[in-house]
Amino acid sequence: MNHPDLLPKLLSMPDVQSAPDHRELAIDQVGIRGLRYPLPIADRDGVQSTIADCSVFVQLPADRKGTHMSRLVELLEERAAPGAEPIGVATLRTLVDALVSRLDAPGGRLELAFPFFVRKTAPVSGIPSLLDYQAKLVGELDEGRYTQTIAVAVPVTSLCPSSKEISEYGAHNQRSVITITARTREPMFIADLLRVAEEEASSELFGILKRADEKFVTERAYDNPRFVEDLVRGVAARLDADPRLDAFVVEAENFESIHNHSAFARIARRM
Amino acid sequence: MNHPDLLPKLLSMPDVQSAPDHRELAIDQVGIRGLRYPLPIADRDGVQSTIADCSVFVQLPADRKGTHMSRLVELLEERAAPGAEPIGVATLRTLVDALVSRLDAPGGRLELAFPFFVRKTAPVSGIPSLLDYQAKLVGELDEGRYTQTIAVAVPVTSLCPSSKEISEYGAHNQRSVITITARTREPMFIADLLRVAEEEASSELFGILKRADEKFVTERAYDNPRFVEDLVRGVAARLDADPRLDAFVVEAENFESIHNHSAFARIARRM
Amino acid sequence: MNHPDLLPKLLSMPDVQSAPDHRELAIDQVGIRGLRYPLPIADRDGVQSTIADCSVFVQLPADRKGTHMSRLVELLEERAAPGAEPIGVATLRTLVDALVSRLDAPGGRLELAFPFFVRKTAPVSGIPSLLDYQAKLVGELDEGRYTQTIAVAVPVTSLCPSSKEISEYGAHNQRSVITITARTREPMFIADLLRVAEEEASSELFGILKRADEKFVTERAYDNPRFVEDLVRGVAARLDADPRLDAFVVEAENFESIHNHSAFARIARRM
Amino acid sequence: MNHPDLLPKLLSMPDVQSAPDHRELAIDQVGIRGLRYPLPIADRDGVQSTIADCSVFVQLPADRKGTHMSRLVELLEERAAPGAEPIGVATLRTLVDALVSRLDAPGGRLELAFPFFVRKTAPVSGIPSLLDYQAKLVGELDEGRYTQTIAVAVPVTSLCPSSKEISEYGAHNQRSVITITARTREPMFIADLLRVAEEEASSELFGILKRADEKFVTERAYDNPRFVEDLVRGVAARLDADPRLDAFVVEAENFESIHNHSAFARIARRM
Repeated sequence: MNHPDLLPKLLSMPDVQSAPDHRELAIDQVGIRGLRYPLPIADRDGVQSTIADCSVFVQLPADRKGTHMSRLVELLEERAAPGAEPIGVATLRTLVDALVSRLDAPGGRLELAFPFFVRKTAPVSGIPSLLDYQAKLVGELDEGRYTQTIAVAVPVTSLCPSSKEISEYGAHNQRSVITITARTREPMFIADLLRVAEEEASSELFGILKRADEKFVTERAYDNPRFVEDLVRGVAARLDADPRLDAFVVEAENFESIHNHSAFARIARRM
Repeated sequence: MNHPDLLPKLLSMPDVQSAPDHRELAIDQVGIRGLRYPLPIADRDGVQSTIADCSVFVQLPADRKGTHMSRLVELLEERAAPGAEPIGVATLRTLVDALVSRLDAPGGRLELAFPFFVRKTAPVSGIPSLLDYQAKLVGELDEGRYTQTIAVAVPVTSLCPSSKEISEYGAHNQRSVITITARTREPMFIADLLRVAEEEASSELFGILKRADEKFVTERAYDNPRFVEDLVRGVAARLDADPRLDAFVVEAENFESIHNHSAFARIARRM
Repeated sequence: MNHPDLLPKLLSMPDVQSAPDHRELAIDQVGIRGLRYPLPIADRDGVQSTIADCSVFVQLPADRKGTHMSRLVELLEERAAPGAEPIGVATLRTLVDALVSRLDAPGGRLELAFPFFVRKTAPVSGIPSLLDYQAKLVGELDEGRYTQTIAVAVPVTSLCPSSKEISEYGAHNQRSVITITARTREPMFIADLLRVAEEEASSELFGILKRADEKFVTERAYDNPRFVEDLVRGVAARLDADPRLDAFVVEAENFESIHNHSAFARIARRM
Repeated sequence: MNHPDLLPKLLSMPDVQSAPDHRELAIDQVGIRGLRYPLPIADRDGVQSTIADCSVFVQLPADRKGTHMSRLVELLEERAAPGAEPIGVATLRTLVDALVSRLDAPGGRLELAFPFFVRKTAPVSGIPSLLDYQAKLVGELDEGRYTQTIAVAVPVTSLCPSSKEISEYGAHNQRSVITITARTREPMFIADLLRVAEEEASSELFGILKRADEKFVTERAYDNPRFVEDLVRGVAARLDADPRLDAFVVEAENFESIHNHSAFARIARRM
């Protein structure tokens, strides 16, 4: 299906994107979004293959009409090739540097959102299973300054302290998602960051639980009631004390078992 | 922005859709999908304004190249006009009849999916609030035979019987969604159908619950533990005994508070 | 199902949320999210019934354990009652003021996201039909200062200037969504804001187009090619010149017809 | 965090799921849904790591109260282990057999939905890039009879024949998704099935296109206009003639560039 004979003729085609633009408006971000690519991700426990939803943007000066979108995909195509170096919190910057230099851009931004897995062992039976988290790495170069954020959405159990207190027995509980977005001063593993959320919840989750484990997590949650307010305060207090972080946002959403809406809380620090 | 002067010339434009097609393949459904339209819906408690996600399809004979999509939208535009007659389980057929007759089609199908609200009163305080359900009405004419289905997704609380039994205190519970899809022999209100699901759950949900109500629903759920299997069996047993129904599917999905996946069950009868 | 006899006993139940919290961490936002409520919205062309996805948050001081979630729903329940005053850009603040005062909170934030409809007339045939947009109103009180933003996502056609220039015939085009988020100094109708996006696109969209209209919009788009960069620059230039706006973000996403990913651009000013 | 000392005591806990149920209603499907697991998938071009959204169900006899959900996850955990045998159209049945036998169930059903990638070469420049498709494998054992379906959603370009015919220049085109669901008599690669859809469209898509390629696909689409009706007829005619298939459904959805809704068509044969 290739037509290399057409190539010389086509290479002389007008390059509309490189023409000047007369509105004199610089663009903060221009590029591609919603590109799914399989990528190897390196983290605390080794390398895992995942499938990332990728956004790749550059800044565009006021006098340039357009950017070259195909080069943005090429950057990821190289990293998806067999044997390519995995991407991780310690190496993301090399990708952003390559982006800005190849596109000859004043700045650039890369966002990779992907399912991230941790193999956990059930609390009593010790049976292993994977748990999935939604993670996001963002690297940005703006006016020569590089910033990097790690975000991870952590599913947990929350059990309502008020319901426990006022009821003769039982207490409503539900699945919650705690999302931590952290601007890091030094590399910090995704697998470590998500543990903070799990430890502050009424209980953490597991893929496989045998009856003995189910008893354990049920009682653990009842012993550790947490409002949505408690979830964000507990996580924020620990992140505040962590010298590896510059700034953070912590959000918690409880998919209430007694309502058809969520309870939500958010604490932001320097972000 | 109208250009009526162009109209005579344009009306003589070729009508490609009406040309014959030579592959000799009839099409089961052709039309529009994903059209949002505000529509009045009539049900047990009166008329409510909702916003429907509409699909409107006709059957296309083997010898016709295409259908006239704009006429499908016109059908809904008429029903969205101020003062238009509301749509409900008892009147859906008139829309399907109009569809088939205007498009001169051998058959047709209309699907309206929309949020549906019921004003409920909290179990102890009696405070009113709305609860939202996702409903769907489908009417279809095929070989002269009309069938109609009503579907409603009902959010409820489920509390795990096993967790209650094996734990010294507490029991994991969560939000579940019970979906009933019913092919009806005679009109049946959405508001009545969804009650079957609410009554078979560990507890129904409310928009507003004061502390006294929260105690009530917490204890009610603990007193009525239900596996996902129990939810579908309880609903199926009642629908099976209802002479207004020809066929049904009942599905239940528990957004497990101790896992990051759902428990799911399904019973279908004659569907 | 009401049990008023239980009420006196229950009213003496402990109010855990009002207890003090000892972590000394104020919470930026706490409340409810994902609550669907039918609400009347007032805008340029009158009042329309819509269904909003509502978030209602308050700020929580460091010394208070929790907020009273049910009061947040009550605020919307009142506005959904028959005959209630519609909500619009000019009256949103009254809701935010009520929120902060009833919850005795230092600040609060209300977000209403909803489908918004405009009845348009086809460019040649003049046939009327509704077009749906996704709109969002946000009002926030923080340290006594009120800010309000209007956001609207506008579906349009974009036609690629490069594809037109290099191809002997045709040009790839596609549906795009231009999203304008504006912090306003004075009230500005949603229906007016979205027109800016429609006028800067290759073509605007319509629900119903007859053949004459289809010819018109096809040729209009070919006559007005726009890169994703042009879409955001065109809109930004006009918003920049509008004295009613304090700050804005304009984003455009092209669901490329020749790729399985989007082209995207973004310009932010003072936001 | 393991507590093996508790194990003996816990193993004597009541097994509520194994108790009898008295409603005498068999359940068609009960199990787990929405479980994300990383799995290796084997297809025409080798093995690729993907992340599947998994549903695993068994049939439950009328006299059994519940199923053992944890065993369903264990089945996938084994296949996600390093070095595990990949899953593919030729080996899916072994998983369904294991499911039914381990759960001692009269029947079972496995659904794996996942992103699937094909490395394509741009039509003129020959530059390689990956394209993502959404694929789904379903295997079911019912009354001792095994059926298997392969589904794949294929993004393509469609260009409107009517718009081309009536317009002096240009023609509206857009991204479409053609979905093929095939019940196969003998194994058939996903990579082969999706080509049928790509060959029947106005043009196929690519991740990376240089200017010469963009000219090529723009002109190719203009040379091959297709209504949504043509897309399903073209694909159906070819699937009808393929002896490897027992039954199929083909659906096409055009995300119209001139409307904010989709055009849709569907042909089903023996399904």
